[in-house]
Amino acid sequence: MSLKISIVGAAGYTGLELVRLLSAHPEVEIINLLGKRTAGQKMSDVYPHLMDCCDLEIVEKDLQQVADESDVVFLALPHGVSGGLKLEGCKVIDLAGDFRLGKEGRKEFYGNESSTEYVYGLPELNREAIMGADKVANPGCFATVAQLCLLPFAKVNSVDISAVTGSSGSGKDASDSTHHPLRSHNMKSYKIGKHRHIPEIIQSTGCKEITFVPTSGPFVRGIHCTAFVDAEMVDFKEFYKGHPFVRIKDSVQLVDVVGSNYCDISVQQVGDKIVVQGVIDNLVKGAAGSAVQNFNLMNGFDESLGLTIFPLYP
Amino acid sequence: MSLKISIVGAAGYTGLELVRLLSAHPEVEIINLLGKRTAGQKMSDVYPHLMDCCDLEIVEKDLQQVADESDVVFLALPHGVSGGLKLEGCKVIDLAGDFRLGKEGRKEFYGNESSTEYVYGLPELNREAIMGADKVANPGCFATVAQLCLLPFAKVNSVDISAVTGSSGSGKDASDSTHHPLRSHNMKSYKIGKHRHIPEIIQSTGCKEITFVPTSGPFVRGIHCTAFVDAEMVDFKEFYKGHPFVRIKDSVQLVDVVGSNYCDISVQQVGDKIVVQGVIDNLVKGAAGSAVQNFNLMNGFDESLGLTIFPLYP
Amino acid sequence: MSLKISIVGAAGYTGLELVRLLSAHPEVEIINLLGKRTAGQKMSDVYPHLMDCCDLEIVEKDLQQVADESDVVFLALPHGVSGGLKLEGCKVIDLAGDFRLGKEGRKEFYGNESSTEYVYGLPELNREAIMGADKVANPGCFATVAQLCLLPFAKVNSVDISAVTGSSGSGKDASDSTHHPLRSHNMKSYKIGKHRHIPEIIQSTGCKEITFVPTSGPFVRGIHCTAFVDAEMVDFKEFYKGHPFVRIKDSVQLVDVVGSNYCDISVQQVGDKIVVQGVIDNLVKGAAGSAVQNFNLMNGFDESLGLTIFPLYP
Amino acid sequence: MSLKISIVGAAGYTGLELVRLLSAHPEVEIINLLGKRTAGQKMSDVYPHLMDCCDLEIVEKDLQQVADESDVVFLALPHGVSGGLKLEGCKVIDLAGDFRLGKEGRKEFYGNESSTEYVYGLPELNREAIMGADKVANPGCFATVAQLCLLPFAKVNSVDISAVTGSSGSGKDASDSTHHPLRSHNMKSYKIGKHRHIPEIIQSTGCKEITFVPTSGPFVRGIHCTAFVDAEMVDFKEFYKGHPFVRIKDSVQLVDVVGSNYCDISVQQVGDKIVVQGVIDNLVKGAAGSAVQNFNLMNGFDESLGLTIFPLYP
Repeated sequence: MSLKISIVGAAGYTGLELVRLLSAHPEVEIINLLGKRTAGQKMSDVYPHLMDCCDLEIVEKDLQQVADESDVVFLALPHGVSGGLKLEGCKVIDLAGDFRLGKEGRKEFYGNESSTEYVYGLPELNREAIMGADKVANPGCFATVAQLCLLPFAKVNSVDISAVTGSSGSGKDASDSTHHPLRSHNMKSYKIGKHRHIPEIIQSTGCKEITFVPTSGPFVRGIHCTAFVDAEMVDFKEFYKGHPFVRIKDSVQLVDVVGSNYCDISVQQVGDKIVVQGVIDNLVKGAAGSAVQNFNLMNGFDESLGLTIFPLYP
Repeated sequence: MSLKISIVGAAGYTGLELVRLLSAHPEVEIINLLGKRTAGQKMSDVYPHLMDCCDLEIVEKDLQQVADESDVVFLALPHGVSGGLKLEGCKVIDLAGDFRLGKEGRKEFYGNESSTEYVYGLPELNREAIMGADKVANPGCFATVAQLCLLPFAKVNSVDISAVTGSSGSGKDASDSTHHPLRSHNMKSYKIGKHRHIPEIIQSTGCKEITFVPTSGPFVRGIHCTAFVDAEMVDFKEFYKGHPFVRIKDSVQLVDVVGSNYCDISVQQVGDKIVVQGVIDNLVKGAAGSAVQNFNLMNGFDESLGLTIFPLYP
Repeated sequence: MSLKISIVGAAGYTGLELVRLLSAHPEVEIINLLGKRTAGQKMSDVYPHLMDCCDLEIVEKDLQQVADESDVVFLALPHGVSGGLKLEGCKVIDLAGDFRLGKEGRKEFYGNESSTEYVYGLPELNREAIMGADKVANPGCFATVAQLCLLPFAKVNSVDISAVTGSSGSGKDASDSTHHPLRSHNMKSYKIGKHRHIPEIIQSTGCKEITFVPTSGPFVRGIHCTAFVDAEMVDFKEFYKGHPFVRIKDSVQLVDVVGSNYCDISVQQVGDKIVVQGVIDNLVKGAAGSAVQNFNLMNGFDESLGLTIFPLYP
Repeated sequence: MSLKISIVGAAGYTGLELVRLLSAHPEVEIINLLGKRTAGQKMSDVYPHLMDCCDLEIVEKDLQQVADESDVVFLALPHGVSGGLKLEGCKVIDLAGDFRLGKEGRKEFYGNESSTEYVYGLPELNREAIMGADKVANPGCFATVAQLCLLPFAKVNSVDISAVTGSSGSGKDASDSTHHPLRSHNMKSYKIGKHRHIPEIIQSTGCKEITFVPTSGPFVRGIHCTAFVDAEMVDFKEFYKGHPFVRIKDSVQLVDVVGSNYCDISVQQVGDKIVVQGVIDNLVKGAAGSAVQNFNLMNGFDESLGLTIFPLYP
C-alpha cells in the first residue's frame, strides 16, 4: 500500500525534483502539491516539461490539514520558514536549513528558535538514527558533498575546500547571479569563508579549521568539490562499503553523477596533503534524492527504492 | 518472463542510451553487449558514470550466435554496416540508416543492396505494421522530428526546414565539429539540402519540395526543428490523439523534452504559411527511445512501457 | 582633432559596447556617459571588467546641455524613449527603434509620433544618405542581418527566415528568458511572425511575404540567420564589393564574427529555393558597431575607422 | 620604424592569438607565419574568422633564415621542440615550456638539455632582466596566475591551489578531453600534484609545499585560480603598483578578463589562511599577451603598447 505524501513548496526546483523522483517511486502516492505564488496552476503549467507527466494542481492549504492527510510531508521551502511551522501527526522531511544545526547554530544561521528535535539526515552519517526518526533535516548541498569527502577520516586537522556549483542551486527565480550573459562562461566565488553550510561540516567532523570557498560555475546541475585535507590516509572503499550511493573511483567528473543520486569520490595523497574530490548532483544527492533516501529509511524501505536512476550522460 | 535482448554497438552513444532505457524496462533482460574497439572492457570502464549501474562486459561474438540467444537484437552500428549482416531467428531493430529507405534509396544513400524487408519504424506513422514486424528500421533523428511536424497535413505543397542539433548527435568520438572551443558558442550549418534524412521525409510525406538546413548547435542533447509549411491548416491534437509521446503545445522548447521520449509540437498560422515547431531528444525519441517504443509494439507490450521517464529539467 | 561624443544609456549592454568601440576610436573623445539608475557610479563600478579601462562617472544631465557640449550623441535607450526627446545642435545616432520606420510604422510599433526625420542607418543600403545626415536611426539587430541577406536580390517573392539570437540581446537586466538553468541548453522561439524588426525588412526589400521566426539560443553573442528565399540567384560578391564589413563565404559560422563588426554571408541554390545564411555579433554589427560605422560616414571618416577589430576566436 | 617579427607555429591557438595581438600593435610588421601541417594555406583558410584580417600564407622555411629576416621571433610550438632549435641573430620569445626552468628542471620536465640561457618572462617578477634580454621564456598559463597570486608574500609556508581552465588551453586539435558532449557541462581534474607548471611556481616563490589541482572547466577561455595560503597578510595593491596588467579587486570573476591581458586578483583573510583568487585569459595574459608584454620590454616600448584591449564582456 502506497504512502500518502505531500510536497510543500512544490514549484521550486527542489520541489520539482521531489516530484520527479517521487512520481517514479513504487510505494508513493503524491496527494498534495502546495505553493503560494503558483497556487491554482497545474504543475505542468508552471513547468511545461511535465505535461502528461504531472498535471496535479498546486494548492494553498492549511498545513495541519496537509499533515492530517499525509503519511509524510516534504518541506521544500526557503530557509527560515519551516522553523515557524507546526506539523503534527505525520513524518516530516525538511529540505531547508532550519533544523540542520544544534540549538545555537539554528538560531544564529537561520533565526530558528524552535525546540523541536530533528535528526540530521545524512544517511551515510546517521542511518540508524534516521531509521527511527519522525522528523529529519536534510543536509545542505555543499555540506553533503563536503561531509562525504571528510567523514572517513578519523581526525581532520585542517581542510581547505573549493566547491563549484551549478546555477540550479540558485533556484527558480531569475537573478543577477544567474543572468545568462554573465553566468554562461564565468566562474565567481561568493561568501568566502562565510557560507551557512560550514557549520554543518564542523558539526559532523569536529574540524574547525575549515577554509571553504564556494564558487558559481557555468553549468546547471552539480557540485564539484576539492578538499585539501591535513589528515592520515584512510580506506574510503572500506568506509563506504554498504552505502549504495557513494562510489569510490580513481578520478571523478561532474557528468558522471548528473541526474542521479550518486556521490562519486576520489582520494589521493599529494605530498603531505590528501586531495579528496567529490561530485554530486546538487538537486538529487544534494537535495531531493537524499530526501527520498531518508524517506526510504524512515519508512522501512530499501534505501535505494525509487532511486536507481542512471546518470543522464552525455 | 523477461525477453532476452542484445545490443550490438553498445559503446556508442546510441547503444549507451539503449542500455539506460532497457535497464529500466520491466520486461527486459540484457544478455549481450557487443563492441569491437571496446571488447573486453566493462561498460562501466568505458562509461564511468555506469559504475554499479551496468558493469556488464562488452564482448565480440558471432552475430548468429547472438541472434540464437536473443529474443530481440538492437543494432546500434555506424551507417552502412547492418546492410551486410544476416541475423536469423530473432527480432531485429536497426538504429542505423541502412534499411530506412526503399530499395533504390537504401542503395543510393547507404550502399545497401540487401533485399531483406524492414518495416519503417516511426510508431506514429506505422504502428500497425510495426506490431506485426520482425525487423524494424528505426528512423533518423532529424527525420523523426521533421515527419512528426508534417504527418498531420493532408498534403504539403512545399516546406522549408531549419533544424538545430546537439553535439551528442555526432557520437562518441571526438572530431573537429565537436571540439569544445569551436562548438561551445557556435552555430554552423552543414550538408544544406543534402542530408540523408531528407529522403525519409519525402518517403512518408510525398512532398518533394523540401529545403532542409541542418545546423550544429551549442548544446549536447536535442533537436529544435522549425518547418515553414505551405499547406492547409489541420488539427494536430486530433491527429495525435492516442499517441502517448507527442504533445501539442502553444510553444515548445528544447529543455522540455531532454532525457525523455517526448516530441513536443506547436503549430501556428503566419500569413499564408504554417509554422510548425518540433523538439525531441535526439538520443531518445530520435534514436533509442523510439527503438524501445518499437520494441514494445513488436512484442505486444504497452507502447509506453519503460519509457515514462520525465524530462530532466532544469 | 577629436570629436566630442556622449552616450545616453551608457550602462546598458549597447551603451557598454559603444564605450568599448569608441574608447578605441582614434578620432573620438567621450565626454559624457549618461544613465539614470546607475548615475553617480563609475562605469567600472557597474562593469568591473572596465577597471582602469573606463572609470568615467555616469551622470544624469539635461539632454539639451549634453547636445550643446557634444559633436555627436549616441542614444542607447529602451525603445519608446527617444521618440519623445529633443536634441538640437548636434548629430544624433539613435540605437533604439523609434525612428527606424516611416511615419505610420514608427507610430504603430513604437508609439512615436515625432515628425523629426531620421535616415535609416544601414550603411550597405543607405551609405550616401547617411553621409549627409545629421540624424540616423540605427537598424535592429535581426533586421540588419536579414536585410544583408536579402538586399542583393532584385526581387524577393517570398522568404522564410529562422534567426537564432544570443542572450546578450535581452540586455543587462535578469529575466526569466535569460535565467541560466533555462537558457543554457535551450532553444525557444518567440513572437513568431510578430517581431518588430519585420517591418524594417519589408521597408527596404519590398517583400511582404516574410515569415520570420526568432529564436533564443544558448549562447551570449551573435545572431545566426537562415533565409529560404524564393528569388532569382544573384552575385553577392559583386553586390557587396566595396562594403568592408560584409564577407561572402562558402559557409558561415557564428564564432567567425563574435566581437567584430563583420557580417558573414553564404548563398546556395537548393532546388527552387536559395538558402542564404548570415551571421553577425548582435552587439557589434547589430548595434554599436553599426552605429560607429554610421558615425564614421556622417563625419567624413573612413567607414572602418576604429572598427578593424578581429573577431575573438576561439 | 616597425620591428619585423615572425611567428613559428602560427596555426595553433597561441600562434593565432599572437597574430591577433601583433596585428594591432603599432610598432610591428609580421613578416613570416610558419607552420608545418598548414603550410601553403592562408591563415584565413585555417581560421575563416580572419578573412580580410590576416590573409598571409603560412610557410615552411629554414629557421635560421627566419631569424636572419626578423628582429624578433615568437616560438609557439609544442613543448619539447624549441629546446632543440638554434636561432641566432634575433631576439626570441619562446611560449613553450622548454626554457622556463633551470638546467635540471628543463631536462626533467621537457627533455631539454640545451645550455642556452633564457630569462624567465614573467614581467611582474623579472621586468629588469627581461628589458635586457635577447631570449625570453614565457611562463605557463597556470604558472602565471599562480605566481601572481603568491609573489607579494614575503614567505609562503604552504599553499593549496585549485585552478580551473578553459578548453582553449588544450589547443586546436580535437581530443577526448575537449569533446563537446563531455566537456560542456563537466568539471574534471587531471595531473593532480603532477602538473609541469608546479616547478615554475616553486622556482619563483621558494615554496615547496604546494598542492596543485588543475581542473578542466566547461568554458573556452580563462583560468580561475584559488590559492589557500599559509602566510602573513601583505599589501597587494602596494606590491603591484606600477604593474599595468594586475588589478587588485574585492572580488574577481572570469568574464572580467576574457580577451584582455589583465590578471585580476582578490585577497582576504579567512581564519588562519589567506584566500587569494586570480583570473586570467589563458591565451592572453597566460600566453600571447604576456609574450607581447615581454616583447615591449625587450625592445624599449611601453609595457602596455598594443595591449590596451578591453575585456570582451558580455
